[in-house]
Amino acid sequence: MSPFSRGFVPSFMKLLTRYPCRSTRGSLCRFSGSVDAHGGVTVRHLPADVTEAAFSELLRESVCVWRSEGRVAVWLRVPLCRSRLAEVAALQGFTFHHAVRDEAVLSLWMEDGESRLPNYATHQVGVAGAVVNQSNGKVLVVQDKNRVKNMWKFPGGLSNPSENIGDTAVREVFEETGIRSEFRSLLSIRQQHHHPGAFGNSDMYLICRLAPVTYEINFCKHECLRCEWMDLAELAKISDATPITSRIAKLLLCGLENGFDNIDLNMEELPAVYTGLVYQIYHRKIPEHV
Amino acid sequence: MSPFSRGFVPSFMKLLTRYPCRSTRGSLCRFSGSVDAHGGVTVRHLPADVTEAAFSELLRESVCVWRSEGRVAVWLRVPLCRSRLAEVAALQGFTFHHAVRDEAVLSLWMEDGESRLPNYATHQVGVAGAVVNQSNGKVLVVQDKNRVKNMWKFPGGLSNPSENIGDTAVREVFEETGIRSEFRSLLSIRQQHHHPGAFGNSDMYLICRLAPVTYEINFCKHECLRCEWMDLAELAKISDATPITSRIAKLLLCGLENGFDNIDLNMEELPAVYTGLVYQIYHRKIPEHV
Repeated sequence: MSPFSRGFVPSFMKLLTRYPCRSTRGSLCRFSGSVDAHGGVTVRHLPADVTEAAFSELLRESVCVWRSEGRVAVWLRVPLCRSRLAEVAALQGFTFHHAVRDEAVLSLWMEDGESRLPNYATHQVGVAGAVVNQSNGKVLVVQDKNRVKNMWKFPGGLSNPSENIGDTAVREVFEETGIRSEFRSLLSIRQQHHHPGAFGNSDMYLICRLAPVTYEINFCKHECLRCEWMDLAELAKISDATPITSRIAKLLLCGLENGFDNIDLNMEELPAVYTGLVYQIYHRKIPEHV
Repeated sequence: MSPFSRGFVPSFMKLLTRYPCRSTRGSLCRFSGSVDAHGGVTVRHLPADVTEAAFSELLRESVCVWRSEGRVAVWLRVPLCRSRLAEVAALQGFTFHHAVRDEAVLSLWMEDGESRLPNYATHQVGVAGAVVNQSNGKVLVVQDKNRVKNMWKFPGGLSNPSENIGDTAVREVFEETGIRSEFRSLLSIRQQHHHPGAFGNSDMYLICRLAPVTYEINFCKHECLRCEWMDLAELAKISDATPITSRIAKLLLCGLENGFDNIDLNMEELPAVYTGLVYQIYHRKIPEHV
């Protein structure tokens, strides 16, 4: 784990000291930098009405001071509407760390060797829901529109930002099929890298077991070609299901026959030690006596 | 699932048509746009040596034409070293979709209503390894340096881009403790939103079960305060372990007593239907006869 890894807070979120930097030549730089626990400096606010030339000079002087103080990195927040300053910073070695909506965050690694700055988000998360009718052994499946091959699969889609896994499954199932359902368990996780639909990033795809609350299909004609309740045993056998769908159909068959507690990961909420937030954890059920 | 969701390919990766646009006034726009299956247009290459005023005019004309053709969105790739053009695009409603290293991708949603463009990556993924010595019931634990509370936990850290789950666990365990180990199974998944260490994004944290290959601890003094082999029964009871560590210690105790096949998610590789890539899937073991 690098000093910037898991649990450590990027500099511009956890401020230890805050100071206007003073250049070695005695003139006061206008950058107000915040130093974090890892020796990085964050510039949150760029001076107003600064020319490109003045910004360039200020940045050069500031970086020089920070280097002399042993700082390891600089984070620079640049509003989209002042992007020409990013161009100036690039000439001094800054690159994009990330950008969202109307702001870019640029970074400069100042120590020798490879940057140890933490990466920005690397994964998109998608969730599918296997809605199983326990009374007749049928499961809800769809075929996507706009596909070269028409393969049966479980309805699902990408998680919205900050959406819990089970909530994505229930929402996507309803949006695609009109079926209301309730979260029961997590069944599987799949990771895939260099995903073309994820801007070349990684894709984490989870399948949940859901219990139906309604049964009448009213599927989204815009997204789906077909939608039906299919026998699990049939879904496990047919050739026109995606490999992961066939696989999970077999797993669900085991659950139907021997009890879902043989295949389920249960969800519980636990407190986070350092942030005070609550999170959801999924694992096999632990017997009461342990 | 929106038409841009899971499995669909952003416009600048899947080109259906490619054309220089012709403005309604008959002059040839210099933007070469590529149209994707969802009606989005991607501008991959900005004309060289264009002034800001000329770029502004070109962009306005191009957007006007694309709008008249019923295109729903525009993707604009802007090199960091030409960021002043991003500033110009912002004046016409473009915002950052994402930015990596030396390039930003801006987008403009042109249809009525909320944007249906897919989000960029929303999660960071971290993996911890619970290295269990089955012969004596001990597990490898560490205490991080630089923490307010010194809590016992499993060694781990963030996945590198495109790194598989088990590989991250094995790598991080070695880097932090000097112990060589082998991947056995996935035990749990935790999701946490608005994570301060993830630039406010979501954090997915997985714990794997590993088997030790070496036993002599040589821990990283830079990252860890303490490192030891601890009785699982003790780890499950003590108060100075993080809640998730206590929880997984209990789960591992069940595994030790009743067999790890009661707590494990097994990993297998399957082919992806549409991309031809191989991916890893984790779920409960399916009996041979199914």
